[in-house]
Amino acid sequence: MDDANAATGNGNSHQTSLGDSSVLDVYPLSCYYFGSMDSVPFKNETVADRVLRMKANYDAYGMRNCVAAVIVYVSALQPELVVMDKVELFKHPHLLLLQVQNSIYKLPGGRLRPGESDIQCLKRKLSSKLSAGEDGRGPEWEIGECLGVWWRPGFETLLYPYLPPNTKRPKECIKLFLVKLPTSRRFIVPKNFRLLAVPLCQLHDNDETYGPIISGVPQLLSKFSFNFVEP
Amino acid sequence: MDDANAATGNGNSHQTSLGDSSVLDVYPLSCYYFGSMDSVPFKNETVADRVLRMKANYDAYGMRNCVAAVIVYVSALQPELVVMDKVELFKHPHLLLLQVQNSIYKLPGGRLRPGESDIQCLKRKLSSKLSAGEDGRGPEWEIGECLGVWWRPGFETLLYPYLPPNTKRPKECIKLFLVKLPTSRRFIVPKNFRLLAVPLCQLHDNDETYGPIISGVPQLLSKFSFNFVEP
Repeated sequence: MDDANAATGNGNSHQTSLGDSSVLDVYPLSCYYFGSMDSVPFKNETVADRVLRMKANYDAYGMRNCVAAVIVYVSALQPELVVMDKVELFKHPHLLLLQVQNSIYKLPGGRLRPGESDIQCLKRKLSSKLSAGEDGRGPEWEIGECLGVWWRPGFETLLYPYLPPNTKRPKECIKLFLVKLPTSRRFIVPKNFRLLAVPLCQLHDNDETYGPIISGVPQLLSKFSFNFVEP
Repeated sequence: MDDANAATGNGNSHQTSLGDSSVLDVYPLSCYYFGSMDSVPFKNETVADRVLRMKANYDAYGMRNCVAAVIVYVSALQPELVVMDKVELFKHPHLLLLQVQNSIYKLPGGRLRPGESDIQCLKRKLSSKLSAGEDGRGPEWEIGECLGVWWRPGFETLLYPYLPPNTKRPKECIKLFLVKLPTSRRFIVPKNFRLLAVPLCQLHDNDETYGPIISGVPQLLSKFSFNFVEP
């Protein structure tokens, strides 16, 4: 066994102190079915319009609470899915992203309804955005631990992975949760979204393309040993 | 209660789903005593010398395994400690760093001895670097969860928060562990090291000054609610 095998958690004694929760089973893309459904409306608004909408919502409902899913799998060729990949990236973990309008990358997720919990909201969003709202069909989404939290202190400011000093009334809070995939699942995605599998090595330190949240996901996942399960 | 108070974990219902482990008690610096001891040797070598040393060590012992401590506290004025701070950063979490030669910032930690576990090594390093090796005196270091792991695929390459594709024999692995401080402790630091308390907002996205590992710590800590304990 070489060091790289040890790194994936197969018997490296230094890994044992992390406990079992640090081992993440990931499955090849060939375990999943990918299809599409009708387009869903996507807000194509100006920055000024967005700020106005956020201010109105803040006045009505208070801070915007959002959740987002971090879903990891291993690469494989799959015709319905755009794998941003080369053959050499075999067994390198990939993150599931949704792409809109060729330049906007998003983690699956969205905004909490009043009274809704983080977990309830994330399950609802995953069902509506990744499986055509087929409640009760297919396995339940397994929501894991919270990996990170980002804060927006003002309507027109950047996001930060902490509450910036003197922020009494933050305007938005986004929580990232690990979502574990079952051994098989159907993904049904609206036609105006592309489902991408992007290797962690392409996301890391690539704030310019993916924004601060997505480009930081490799760090948030770094504590896990990936256990690549053969189907 | 405003949103910012909710953000620190004092009663925000959205936080409860994270479980108790996501709440981190932090104490003001006034709880701690800071002193100094004799200087310890610091390797002041050229890059070429460093690579030669790493190669010799790799041939003798295999991959270099290192551990580092993430220690958080709240700011307060303390004469023996350089607090890089303004009054406005009151109640903003700070990270403990060691500074050598004015420009090198380090998390406390170091290299595992053969056969040593991560936790054993980190306790040994914290005792030798932060409390003058006073084993058995003062409270035991409480090592928490692993927050992140960084890999160096080659002797002269950068560090990455994942094992880069096709890396069969990585040369170094650095694991970051959360270390929880007790309500009081003596810190005794070698004279040629400065102990710093640097606010998270100064570290974030500041790779140029602090390097990739330290500048990424705010993200790794973002999932925690900080509970500021009054002494």
